[in-house]
Amino acid sequence: MFEKIHHLGYAVEDLEAASRFYQERFGARLEEPETVADQGVKAVMFRVGESRVELLEPTHPDSPVGKFLAKRGEGLHHVAFQVEDIEGRLAQLERGGVELIDESPRVGVGGTRMAFVHPKSAFGVLTELVEPDGGPASKPDG
Amino acid sequence: MFEKIHHLGYAVEDLEAASRFYQERFGARLEEPETVADQGVKAVMFRVGESRVELLEPTHPDSPVGKFLAKRGEGLHHVAFQVEDIEGRLAQLERGGVELIDESPRVGVGGTRMAFVHPKSAFGVLTELVEPDGGPASKPDG
Repeated sequence: MFEKIHHLGYAVEDLEAASRFYQERFGARLEEPETVADQGVKAVMFRVGESRVELLEPTHPDSPVGKFLAKRGEGLHHVAFQVEDIEGRLAQLERGGVELIDESPRVGVGGTRMAFVHPKSAFGVLTELVEPDGGPASKPDG
Repeated sequence: MFEKIHHLGYAVEDLEAASRFYQERFGARLEEPETVADQGVKAVMFRVGESRVELLEPTHPDSPVGKFLAKRGEGLHHVAFQVEDIEGRLAQLERGGVELIDESPRVGVGGTRMAFVHPKSAFGVLTELVEPDGGPASKPDG
């Protein structure tokens, strides 16, 4: 079902400091910052092989990432796997008794279609399914 | 510096249950379980694109993964990035003031050479650098 790791989401308090760290210490080439109002985050991404790392700073403390930071501190927030036919995958998981946060896809960073599986149902890992823009008829951008 | 995400480490209480979940719900093809005595873990891996997910069950409660589970519960434990010349990379990070858990590489799952960067120095993410077996003179198995 999983084609690749699409991205990892890291929750950070200070997007600028975290961006500088990955740039200076690991030579990351940062992409343009993006705000996803729906999820209450400012994001900066950088590429690692076929995947990306997404640094996420909350735009307000009661957003999901803001709450995560208050409870657990900075660190790994979620793992996003690329899939084809996200609607079909979600339906299949639901039939299998997997608890979903999003029963239908919404719009994520970079205009992708994404949905979260509840971490309770995935051994504590907040798991995102992502279908690159274009939907079922187009090919993933690999 | 990072060539790809080599693997993600997930801390789980029950390796068999977690393996079954990823196999049945996500179609993961599980590799042979492996025990790494040095790190106090039993591991099962499955491939996702150019990366792997590594399910980790502690062999005893006072191992690093055992302590993680006691403190934080199941979930994302670490992210491993593939690098070339791991010794050179570690020396470079140390010069840059980055705190390392391992100042020189040790042997990880699958006979790789690996070292951890302290999460305090990497915005809360336990970050592993991995060089595939063979060392500096051989090419990564990408």
